[in-house]
Amino acid sequence: METTFDMGGIPRTLELKRDERGVLLEYIDQRKLPDELVFVETRDWMQVVDAIKTLAVRGAPAIGVAGAAALAVYAGNGGTREGFDGMAERVAEARPTAVNLRWAVDRARRHVEGAEWADVPEMLYALVIEMEEEDERTNRTMGAWGAELLGSGARVLTHCNAGSLATCYYGTALGVVYRAAELGKVARVFADETRPVGQGARLTVWELSRAGIPTTLICDNMAAALMAKGEVDAVIVGADRIARNGDFANKIGTYGLAVNAREHGIPFYVAAPVSTIDASTASGDEIVIEQRDASEVLPRPIEGVDVWNPAFDVTPARFVTKFITEKGVHDPDDLPVG
Amino acid sequence: METTFDMGGIPRTLELKRDERGVLLEYIDQRKLPDELVFVETRDWMQVVDAIKTLAVRGAPAIGVAGAAALAVYAGNGGTREGFDGMAERVAEARPTAVNLRWAVDRARRHVEGAEWADVPEMLYALVIEMEEEDERTNRTMGAWGAELLGSGARVLTHCNAGSLATCYYGTALGVVYRAAELGKVARVFADETRPVGQGARLTVWELSRAGIPTTLICDNMAAALMAKGEVDAVIVGADRIARNGDFANKIGTYGLAVNAREHGIPFYVAAPVSTIDASTASGDEIVIEQRDASEVLPRPIEGVDVWNPAFDVTPARFVTKFITEKGVHDPDDLPVG
Repeated sequence: METTFDMGGIPRTLELKRDERGVLLEYIDQRKLPDELVFVETRDWMQVVDAIKTLAVRGAPAIGVAGAAALAVYAGNGGTREGFDGMAERVAEARPTAVNLRWAVDRARRHVEGAEWADVPEMLYALVIEMEEEDERTNRTMGAWGAELLGSGARVLTHCNAGSLATCYYGTALGVVYRAAELGKVARVFADETRPVGQGARLTVWELSRAGIPTTLICDNMAAALMAKGEVDAVIVGADRIARNGDFANKIGTYGLAVNAREHGIPFYVAAPVSTIDASTASGDEIVIEQRDASEVLPRPIEGVDVWNPAFDVTPARFVTKFITEKGVHDPDDLPVG
Repeated sequence: METTFDMGGIPRTLELKRDERGVLLEYIDQRKLPDELVFVETRDWMQVVDAIKTLAVRGAPAIGVAGAAALAVYAGNGGTREGFDGMAERVAEARPTAVNLRWAVDRARRHVEGAEWADVPEMLYALVIEMEEEDERTNRTMGAWGAELLGSGARVLTHCNAGSLATCYYGTALGVVYRAAELGKVARVFADETRPVGQGARLTVWELSRAGIPTTLICDNMAAALMAKGEVDAVIVGADRIARNGDFANKIGTYGLAVNAREHGIPFYVAAPVSTIDASTASGDEIVIEQRDASEVLPRPIEGVDVWNPAFDVTPARFVTKFITEKGVHDPDDLPVG
């Protein structure tokens, strides 16, 4: 199989920068993809929070770094010690389900604990740059581990976007695909469109096509029929929070997909950095699921019609063939919990 | 539970009529729902074919009667004996998967076989009126059988629209819901939005809300999470073709839903008239699945991105708890095959 794999067309999702005026965050406004590739620059931490809440920046690893970046933007543009804790808390609460956001904000807070306030802007700036590099390094390592699980000519199904756009760069589930494509192993990726927000239809197919990987978009409800046709060799998804027992939260629809993968004997892999494993969450029952606005599903309300719109669901550990982290490939009952 | 059930707000889907000028078909243009309730009148059989192809009229029982009505419209507005067979064949081929369309067209052709052409317009007109009445009668009988399967306070999940709008009146899967609601048994109906065409989001919730039934719209990919929460007591769907062995074709997404229903121990019922059972189809493997245009899934093409868009999938008989027809409630291996 001739490969035309090239990630050069995929830009970085977010980058902390600085100039004479202070610290700024540049990010892709993912709500505008695939129609427009728009980079936004902001020096306002509240705009970063807004970007996280409105899904302009989304994906567990990306919102983790964006959260830490919000703290760096605050400190780097005249923010005060007095306002710091309250601000940090508001950042950490921007979205409840992904553990990476609170993990990253807490890490940034601990990093500057006890430091002179005058030193904090520089310390946070350096930390976020380090987190960005670490994110890519982690994803590439994960990709290398995961690629070993795929055979030649693999046809991979994925849900939502756990790609470069969900991280600073390279991606988690799609990081596995990118590394496998580099090795010439990937025949095709099937992307669930991922209702209601369309991360698959808008983001996953966009970045896969930019990398030159043969891509087919399907509606979420077509995955089972595709599996029954024998066209799927593996399912790979990301995760927003992994409980100690291996239950995990990911984009709504992941659970039904996992049930169908098992029915068809198709391996089901979850690729996520170790920071997604929440040692304080014993099982999936404890994971708070964010409910989002009805208008995402039903733009014009109909009298007498309610909408149920959870952003995530929980897949029990028993449906997972292997977890892939930067530390290796793990059975669900043998996770690298800190 | 206080019931406000009243089907008075649900209009008939299609009605054959005649006046001094000839025969006309009146139908709801379902593409415009729920925003607008538009009735179209036509004296042109080709417009009826177009209405079937473009989903202005859809639902296996409704397109059956619409197909026979196209023949009546042809004959009733100056159509000739010479053109009749070719015209009828084009009507029967308008959509390939639902067996009811060919069944109804063949029935109309047999009905006038050997008759004087001068008598054919009247004969076809009378037949279609009979089919309309028969459709409602069949649905009400099916509804009565099916309602016995539901317990008090039932929470029913359905996929696509197998409601009044999929028939001349009353519905198949929703016919069961309507009869059960009349008996005060229905607590809530959950409707899958049913991508890509949105029959659930546009049609099912519209007619359920008009009947005063508590309704919740979900995305297709949320059904499994809803089942896991214990909020679904039964799944009821329609069918476009049932093979002799009990495998059946229905709207894409039905199969994955059936897999999930079984995983959660939730009964999975299929409500369809006996005319949906195709004795000439031994198993689901033989059912032709209509592929529809990519633009239904991806309105603006993205270079390098394919779309797979089957209109239906096949659910093996082993996932069906019971079939409900106008003849009663049947095990999958004991269908009333003619």
